[in-house]
Parts: sequence; structure tokens; C-alpha cells
Amino acid sequence: MESRALEKFELIEIGRVKNDHLEQIPDDYKEKISKIEIHKRYEDALLGIEKNSHISVMCWFDRSERDIQRVHPMADDSNPLTGVFATRAPVRPNPISYTVCELVDREENNLCVKGLDALNETPVIDIKSYKRYDINDPKFPDWAREE
Amino acid sequence: MESRALEKFELIEIGRVKNDHLEQIPDDYKEKISKIEIHKRYEDALLGIEKNSHISVMCWFDRSERDIQRVHPMADDSNPLTGVFATRAPVRPNPISYTVCELVDREENNLCVKGLDALNETPVIDIKSYKRYDINDPKFPDWAREE
Repeated sequence: MESRALEKFELIEIGRVKNDHLEQIPDDYKEKISKIEIHKRYEDALLGIEKNSHISVMCWFDRSERDIQRVHPMADDSNPLTGVFATRAPVRPNPISYTVCELVDREENNLCVKGLDALNETPVIDIKSYKRYDINDPKFPDWAREE
Repeated sequence: MESRALEKFELIEIGRVKNDHLEQIPDDYKEKISKIEIHKRYEDALLGIEKNSHISVMCWFDRSERDIQRVHPMADDSNPLTGVFATRAPVRPNPISYTVCELVDREENNLCVKGLDALNETPVIDIKSYKRYDINDPKFPDWAREE
């Protein structure tokens, strides 16, 4: 069934994160400001973004392991071993992050955002508008209730 | 400033979408069932996923244009020209989708989901748990109110 090779795709960075998170993400990252420098060649893709109070930021976590398939969520050994696809852990086969941030300011190709859980110099690979999902009574595993 | 080449990264498909959306996404896709076949080598990463009622599915839209930076959102010419980073249009430099779906069933490496806006045979590149954001009074452009 899997004799064929899995397909691969080429991502290109569209910007870079600039912040004070040099070694690790601070616990209070939700209150922290980051700058996203969108590369000039992609500035046209920002037209009108300032009309949104929130945006979804996708990064490529280039310092994350790609060959770990199971973790104790939230780096807490008392949480049950869980597949990374059932978590939002940074380790995963394709280390893509997805975080909704407040869009505080835009100046030309620079976005100022609040609440980004990424290290300084992390490549940014996509930005999307924020989408609300009205989901009644979603079910989560016990460990995720406080996430 | 941008004399250096932008960095590139290699994505690998972790699964495939199987559904009846052969040519286009149906208007009522939110009610439609899709199967996601996770490749066997990534099955370990699914441990415990069935404890979630909803999951976030990320696909690589391999049939989407990558060199379009501005669109009329929702393919409606009466909506103002908008940068793709201010939308969720499938066309974008890195054609990654992000959709929260109901997880209807899991059997081994196969997930049955409801509400996936992807065509048959689209590569899947990541799955994450669903995360709620409690955002008070988010601001959107006028065209996005009904999205």
C-alpha cells in the first residue's frame, strides 16, 4: 500500500519573526509583542489586513524535532502519552504552527502582533484572516481542558 | 535588504483526502463526510485523537496558484481587492489550508471527518487538536461578516 514514496512539497518563507524570545517562549507570551517582517516581495498580499483585529499566523518551527510521534502534552509527564496529531506540540513531521494573534499595528511590510508563541528569527510561512468557529460543546481529553 | 535568498523548507505528506469532491468543493461542504487516510508510518501520531470531538486539518492545496497576491474575496467581484494574507483564499504563496472538522470516527489510520473543504486526493500535511480562542468582539472587514 505504501510502496510509493510520499510526495514532498517546497515551502518558501514569506517573512520572519522578530522578538525577544531568544531561547524559549515565555510563559506570558500571550501578553508579548512580536514584529513580523513580511518580505518585500510579498507586501502586496497584505492589502487591507489592517481591517482585522486578529490574524492567524503560521510559522515553520525550524528548531523543532520532526521524528517524534508521541509526547506527554504540555511537557508534563503526568499527562498521558499522546500522538502529536492529537496535540498542538511543536514537534511533528511538518513543524508548522498556527496561532491567532491580535494585530496591533501595521506599517508597510511590518506587522506588530500580540500573543505569538514563536522564537526570534522563526520563518513565517503564511498568514490568514481569523475565522470563528461556533462549535457547541466540543469534547477534549482531560489534559487539554486548561490549554 | 533582501539580497539573500529566502529560505525554503521541505514538507512531506502525512496522509491523503478521500471524498467525492472531484472537481470542486461543494457549497454544502460543511455537511459532507471525507476520509483522511493517514500513511501507516505516521499512525503512531494518532494515539488518543478519538478523545477529541473536533480536529484541525491542514492540507497542501496542490492545485492552487502560488503567484497570486490579491483577490476579490469569496470569488465575488463586488468584494474589494484584498491581499491573500488578509483572507483564507486557497491561492497564496504556500497553499496551506486550515480547517476545523468534526471527528466522526477513527479506525486505525483512517479518520472520518465532517466539514473538510478539500478536493479528493489532496495531500494532508498536519493535524492538530482544536483550540478555542475566546476573543471578545473581533473586527473584520465588511465582506468577511458572513464568511
